[in-house]
Amino acid sequence: MAIDLNSDSGESFGNWAMGDDQAMMKLVTSANIACGFHAGDPSVMRRTTRAAAEHDVAVGAHVAYRDLANFGRVFIDVPANELTDMIIYQLGALDAMARGCGTTLRYVKPHGALYNTIVHHEAHAKAVVRALQEFGGDLPILCLPNSEISRQAEAANIRPVIEAFADRAYTPDGTLVSRRENGAVLHDANEVSARMVKLVESGTITAIDGTEVHLAAESICVHGDTPAAVELASAVRSALTAAGIDVKAFT
Amino acid sequence: MAIDLNSDSGESFGNWAMGDDQAMMKLVTSANIACGFHAGDPSVMRRTTRAAAEHDVAVGAHVAYRDLANFGRVFIDVPANELTDMIIYQLGALDAMARGCGTTLRYVKPHGALYNTIVHHEAHAKAVVRALQEFGGDLPILCLPNSEISRQAEAANIRPVIEAFADRAYTPDGTLVSRRENGAVLHDANEVSARMVKLVESGTITAIDGTEVHLAAESICVHGDTPAAVELASAVRSALTAAGIDVKAFT
Amino acid sequence: MAIDLNSDSGESFGNWAMGDDQAMMKLVTSANIACGFHAGDPSVMRRTTRAAAEHDVAVGAHVAYRDLANFGRVFIDVPANELTDMIIYQLGALDAMARGCGTTLRYVKPHGALYNTIVHHEAHAKAVVRALQEFGGDLPILCLPNSEISRQAEAANIRPVIEAFADRAYTPDGTLVSRRENGAVLHDANEVSARMVKLVESGTITAIDGTEVHLAAESICVHGDTPAAVELASAVRSALTAAGIDVKAFT
Amino acid sequence: MAIDLNSDSGESFGNWAMGDDQAMMKLVTSANIACGFHAGDPSVMRRTTRAAAEHDVAVGAHVAYRDLANFGRVFIDVPANELTDMIIYQLGALDAMARGCGTTLRYVKPHGALYNTIVHHEAHAKAVVRALQEFGGDLPILCLPNSEISRQAEAANIRPVIEAFADRAYTPDGTLVSRRENGAVLHDANEVSARMVKLVESGTITAIDGTEVHLAAESICVHGDTPAAVELASAVRSALTAAGIDVKAFT
Repeated sequence: MAIDLNSDSGESFGNWAMGDDQAMMKLVTSANIACGFHAGDPSVMRRTTRAAAEHDVAVGAHVAYRDLANFGRVFIDVPANELTDMIIYQLGALDAMARGCGTTLRYVKPHGALYNTIVHHEAHAKAVVRALQEFGGDLPILCLPNSEISRQAEAANIRPVIEAFADRAYTPDGTLVSRRENGAVLHDANEVSARMVKLVESGTITAIDGTEVHLAAESICVHGDTPAAVELASAVRSALTAAGIDVKAFT
Repeated sequence: MAIDLNSDSGESFGNWAMGDDQAMMKLVTSANIACGFHAGDPSVMRRTTRAAAEHDVAVGAHVAYRDLANFGRVFIDVPANELTDMIIYQLGALDAMARGCGTTLRYVKPHGALYNTIVHHEAHAKAVVRALQEFGGDLPILCLPNSEISRQAEAANIRPVIEAFADRAYTPDGTLVSRRENGAVLHDANEVSARMVKLVESGTITAIDGTEVHLAAESICVHGDTPAAVELASAVRSALTAAGIDVKAFT
Repeated sequence: MAIDLNSDSGESFGNWAMGDDQAMMKLVTSANIACGFHAGDPSVMRRTTRAAAEHDVAVGAHVAYRDLANFGRVFIDVPANELTDMIIYQLGALDAMARGCGTTLRYVKPHGALYNTIVHHEAHAKAVVRALQEFGGDLPILCLPNSEISRQAEAANIRPVIEAFADRAYTPDGTLVSRRENGAVLHDANEVSARMVKLVESGTITAIDGTEVHLAAESICVHGDTPAAVELASAVRSALTAAGIDVKAFT
Repeated sequence: MAIDLNSDSGESFGNWAMGDDQAMMKLVTSANIACGFHAGDPSVMRRTTRAAAEHDVAVGAHVAYRDLANFGRVFIDVPANELTDMIIYQLGALDAMARGCGTTLRYVKPHGALYNTIVHHEAHAKAVVRALQEFGGDLPILCLPNSEISRQAEAANIRPVIEAFADRAYTPDGTLVSRRENGAVLHDANEVSARMVKLVESGTITAIDGTEVHLAAESICVHGDTPAAVELASAVRSALTAAGIDVKAFT
């Protein structure tokens, strides 16, 4: 049994710091590194990519809509062909930085509003897939199960890698409980860790109404933006390891 | 006898157009394509790179300080290591776009204030050289003769490609007459064309005081930002061809 | 009989030029000046505001979503309270520039995607109204008839000023024919001029299906982004004047 | 005896937080609020200005070069007239926000590289002075003693308000010891507090070599970017109050 742990990384910008990338690089096996469109700048990308390389963490491109002011968190209705171009731009920039740091770009994870949009938005999902095709290198893409992007990726012979969210509650349909609802975010380290061990062992997760839901995840997303988040990620990793699960990159 | 013709390209941004890239692609052999830091955006880069590919024009990265508001035309005193990171970022972004368009990144030409700064600024010249070393691929760099950047490039086994400016007057020292002085910019197509033919044939150019100056250029820079500039570029190309000079990329 | 002519102005940015503001200042009576969020920068704002002051043209704030890359032309789903803050910011910036140029800010016209969104989007329309209330000065707002923004403005004792578009076809419902449909944009100067004279004289406009539609406009929007647009605007103004209509600012 | 305490505020941007503005508003009497060019965005400006209004803290405009990527910390060689326009833009934006929050803009403090540049750079100092003249309202400007900006402000009938830096060592000439030198920054709360009490009582400060230097400051700059900085500011305020010094805005 094996599982990957991924986390958003390199989300500082200029003089503004965010998250504890150094701590997270010791815990995760895949780092979703911001590419300058929602966060990150070339020097933040360098530091984060170098840290990933030093800890043998797989480098992924955390591509986003172009929107530093909103941290990539709001939908932007750009033409699909322009979105393709923006993603190729970000992939290329991080790829060069990765090679400069002695590693390589291994996968892609869309960020924020783009991630949520391509769960259902056909044109933007297609734009992401086209970018991956043109960029080449057979990069897999992290995504939600049963999503437009996962279907389109498969149809284009791009590997969709399903991920679970360690600290989120699930609906009986296997989707995430909206953050606006009570109980959407889990904080108890023991509970979260036990859920993730069970997920890997049985391929199921307990939904918010108590039903068991099938979820065939190859990666678990954890956060590192607060000290509490780092602790939670650490607890999840320890529990997985203690259960004899191999924590390693999906790539 | 052969010479390259290079021109700044892809300097539109979003809804703002600049220059006639389509016309210039039929005239030049090397296109310095903006990478989004002083001008250009991913879709402008795409269109320009595709046009270059279609016309067998060599794609070069027109790297710059990060400064859309000033079009990369003012010095920015960034730390040298951050400048290196910015250049790698730009190279990677254009490289990915070039590959997506079926061509490859072939050379580098710094833009505007960065171009002028590294004629003498040791730390920034070194930052550019380091970016080229880390990026790999042995990309040559277009630059002025006898410049800090040409010396540092050579020392690092990077090929400096000396260029002449078709429409600029030269001092007896072989440097450009400052734009602030009378006669700095030449407008007569016949004069400019004759100077360029002579440059290629004899390796000399007549300075503003009438003396003959040695200038071993491998490329001639022409402009395409106005209809008059396009006409001048066209005249230069015709004159070179008529003189039996082979107009082809230096790469 | 009197009518106002308004036009988007000051939409250059840095080194990129757009439109012929100088020509348009001789034709229009109200200038919608970009405030730096979709176009314009402080020096473009200065030049445009100064030209408006010199020609006794009323200065209006052409407020927009924050999006230079898309020229304010795509919807951005920002929280309503942040939109209010962005609009106050833009109003204040232009107001200061207007006072520095010896004139004053007289009205507001939302731009592009924001203009279209608040025709129906309640929260963003309310955000605009709240910004005008907080900013003070009883600035009127240019808008479409029967729109969410016109209703909310009225409810808040802000004067909505209805505008017609000189070069656009209308549906029998009095809305604009979508640009995606044939015949949406009119190009014939005589036809456009005659339509505008009739609009002012009779308060009606002929819809695309030939029916007469009531349209009580206080202002006519003309464009200045191309030489043909400037000519069209000039023709409209000449026709209005020839018909004895007083062309003057609505403010 | 009285003194003002000023601090940089509102330097968050979008999703990135910086400093503890809420804590500082209880300690300082003047808040230098970022205007969106080096930090801050309209909503950060709103929150910070509202907090200042609630605590009766004087609102100052922390104007800067346009450079979010470098936090306004590097010199940008912009034309002086464009710098004037940028500063008017920032002043107007904050002024509108201040009025919306029921307070008014009371003074100006240039930020970072602009602050340091106008100590000696004649054209940029003049650009700042011209912006204040055009903006009107007789806003005073916080600056270093014996600086180009203080002289030019005085010559233009703008009140220069000299400030001291609580946590910085001084040279025998009364200038700041460069941050690159040992001992440039003081960390001991007792020492810093005692120095500031003495400064107010005697108009002198002990330089790094032990000599006593005259320094007629009307304001003391304290920082709030780290918990330790907030504590230091708190200690300074307590010591001033305990010494019977009235801590109040200079405006």
